[in-house]
Amino acid sequence: MTDFEKVSAYLEENQERYVDELVDFLRFPSISSDSKRKEEMHRCAEWLRARCVNAGLEAEILPTAGWPAVVAETPRREGVPTVLVYGHYDVQPVDPLELWKTPPFEPRIENGRVYARGATDDKGQAFTHLKAAEAWLATVGETPVNVVFLYEGEEEIGSPHLEDFIRDHRKRFEADAVLISDTSQFAPNTPALCYSLRGIVYMEFVVTGASQDLHSGMFGGVAPNPAHVVARILADMKSPEGEIQIPGFYEGMIEPEKWERESFEKLPWDYEGLAKELGIPKLSGEQKYPVPIRKWCRPTLDINGVYGGFAGEGAKTVIPSKAGAKVSMRLVPGQDADRVADLFEEFVRARIPEEYKVKVKSYQNSPATVIPVDDPAMVAGKEAFAKGFGKEPLLIREGASIPVVAFFVDEMKMPVVLLGFGLPDDNLHAPNEKFTLADYQRGIATSAYFLEAYARLKKL
Amino acid sequence: MTDFEKVSAYLEENQERYVDELVDFLRFPSISSDSKRKEEMHRCAEWLRARCVNAGLEAEILPTAGWPAVVAETPRREGVPTVLVYGHYDVQPVDPLELWKTPPFEPRIENGRVYARGATDDKGQAFTHLKAAEAWLATVGETPVNVVFLYEGEEEIGSPHLEDFIRDHRKRFEADAVLISDTSQFAPNTPALCYSLRGIVYMEFVVTGASQDLHSGMFGGVAPNPAHVVARILADMKSPEGEIQIPGFYEGMIEPEKWERESFEKLPWDYEGLAKELGIPKLSGEQKYPVPIRKWCRPTLDINGVYGGFAGEGAKTVIPSKAGAKVSMRLVPGQDADRVADLFEEFVRARIPEEYKVKVKSYQNSPATVIPVDDPAMVAGKEAFAKGFGKEPLLIREGASIPVVAFFVDEMKMPVVLLGFGLPDDNLHAPNEKFTLADYQRGIATSAYFLEAYARLKKL
Repeated sequence: MTDFEKVSAYLEENQERYVDELVDFLRFPSISSDSKRKEEMHRCAEWLRARCVNAGLEAEILPTAGWPAVVAETPRREGVPTVLVYGHYDVQPVDPLELWKTPPFEPRIENGRVYARGATDDKGQAFTHLKAAEAWLATVGETPVNVVFLYEGEEEIGSPHLEDFIRDHRKRFEADAVLISDTSQFAPNTPALCYSLRGIVYMEFVVTGASQDLHSGMFGGVAPNPAHVVARILADMKSPEGEIQIPGFYEGMIEPEKWERESFEKLPWDYEGLAKELGIPKLSGEQKYPVPIRKWCRPTLDINGVYGGFAGEGAKTVIPSKAGAKVSMRLVPGQDADRVADLFEEFVRARIPEEYKVKVKSYQNSPATVIPVDDPAMVAGKEAFAKGFGKEPLLIREGASIPVVAFFVDEMKMPVVLLGFGLPDDNLHAPNEKFTLADYQRGIATSAYFLEAYARLKKL
Repeated sequence: MTDFEKVSAYLEENQERYVDELVDFLRFPSISSDSKRKEEMHRCAEWLRARCVNAGLEAEILPTAGWPAVVAETPRREGVPTVLVYGHYDVQPVDPLELWKTPPFEPRIENGRVYARGATDDKGQAFTHLKAAEAWLATVGETPVNVVFLYEGEEEIGSPHLEDFIRDHRKRFEADAVLISDTSQFAPNTPALCYSLRGIVYMEFVVTGASQDLHSGMFGGVAPNPAHVVARILADMKSPEGEIQIPGFYEGMIEPEKWERESFEKLPWDYEGLAKELGIPKLSGEQKYPVPIRKWCRPTLDINGVYGGFAGEGAKTVIPSKAGAKVSMRLVPGQDADRVADLFEEFVRARIPEEYKVKVKSYQNSPATVIPVDDPAMVAGKEAFAKGFGKEPLLIREGASIPVVAFFVDEMKMPVVLLGFGLPDDNLHAPNEKFTLADYQRGIATSAYFLEAYARLKKL
């Protein structure tokens, strides 16, 4: 019996317990954007730390300037590479709550899937690596490489303190490669290795007119109405064809290479299926670009929220005092995130008439990333998928953003391998988020094999 | 001692009790747009009916297809004119609740003003006429004219059942004139007789893209985003200069006459004071028209609410499934309300791209009204103000709408006299609504005198 066979047998035997533990993990309402969740956030971190210890790791909770991080590592061995596993235990907000079939923090298992907020993003996926390390330690007594775990609690609010935290503990987090599972497979049972992520700039602006809400009959005609200003700015930002109208927005962007465009076209896309799943007659966006390019290689601008005045039941004849919008832009390689944020702010400010005031706020600011596809860690990732899923992974990009990836690659000079185990329709950031349990199990096996493959491929 | 002197003395003596009763009236959270307020609405109506009986009237609660109406009348006399008093006991919603200095249904008296939702609109004003009739009955033993009271409970939701209700009880509500206090003075201690109201068309549209909220990273570039469609439609509707862009919107509108424009300009306006009060450097709207024209004689279009996606604390990277807007238009004489509603709907529907769906809803639909300034009821109104406030009233228009006025004038052929006792800054439909108690007392005196003047001036 090889070491990996022993690990595999252990995974098989402990399958049920591994699911039970995930379900426990999903019960914590660890919503990082909600400042009232202090107790739940800390309880969740403490639970995770205890799981690390049970797995045979040294583990502790380290404070940050925001929510705490859980940091753990396997017993240190000399002469083998070190892998940093990064994940997050915080989750997105749950509204609109009324669209959840069952409560978001009471995990429901149905048809081999677990439904709960955070099921895939990122509790389920992040947990696979801990379970893989546990299996090595429980069977072989050691992991093929040193594994350091960093589970943060602020990913869903843009990881505001993570970079400083890593800098403060630099030695501890230096590694030969970083392993992250916060992306997804290409389609069910079609694993993919993601080598590029879009960046993100998330902004909000609030326009104020009169100092209070006014009656639209008595003041209509002379009162400023900030909702009109917000609508006009939002309408100006993007053409009906989807082109972003902020001057300089596209500056510096690097077009995808020929091999990428060609390989993307050959992927097993199902555009009609996707449109149907979204409940629309055709996919939206810039029609002059193929779908893969729109999803992965074009920057976007989306209104994530717009508000002002009365949104309740019935008719209220009010001229709102304030109106605003939350807008995020997904960036592609070559675009400068700070500059895009500045251009956005300039664009908004230039459109505020004199009787209005505006506040512009920046939440997230992170560039796109590309990871070389021939790095030993990427090659190990390919082999691991082939073993864990019984299939060569596709080489893909992702449209989403993981702010910390740019930091690991650019500042820490560590290659990042993104092993995505979730599915594109797992309802991330939406009601009824889910994770397929078979993918959870395959993910653990893939991670377990990655540790062995990387130990072999990485020359120290 | 003349009859009116007896009435005046009674009003003086009962001043404190009259305020106490108003405060009791204001305690009921009779928000008609909130279907959960059933008990409070009924309790408020019952309280009002009891006050009518105490005042010496026959009174009853009559069901409508919606909230009930309170109907009362003075002991019927032959050979004298009949006046119908119309008012409403329902009030606007209270949000944003956090901007109220004290709870909206716990009336607070400060500096001679009572603060509460409904203080002016319309509980305080509507109550003056009941107190005036009470004073006549308590002192002289009869009112100079027959007075019928109709207090409805659905004005703030557009009086959806009022017209049918009046038609069903037509005989009961037929009168020589209608008396309504739901408008305001021109300025503090500057009473005004309003002879024209703008109409209103209140619409809502909701645009749906994908069947659920989506992650803006994974789907940004191919997912429809209804918030952009809503923003574009709203931006298209009104030019930055304030001109409404819905084709045919201005069709048929009657410009104000020369005497009106001239008299409006001479009114004691304080544009700078108004701008300051609103907290803005200058009044907004169509700068090419004088302020009185913008307030009273120009139709308007205002976004009363816009919504879609995430409006909470923090940053949520979601592409909303739905976004919408509530929009009201104030109409001037000559504009056809039904046609404007149709044009609005056409305008919206023409701008919905194929991958979106839209629902358009109409809440209110009422034309503008003009009442002849030489009608005996109007003349009586002038005399009553002169007596009650010690000042000739100004002749003004109003920018707001009272849906039932058009119905009384057009269908019931009754002249409507609008005796406004409130002030323009009473925060109608906004937080911290108030009513000046001196105006409440003067309003009661004005109403009491109106009954006498109208008995004298109206030839049967």
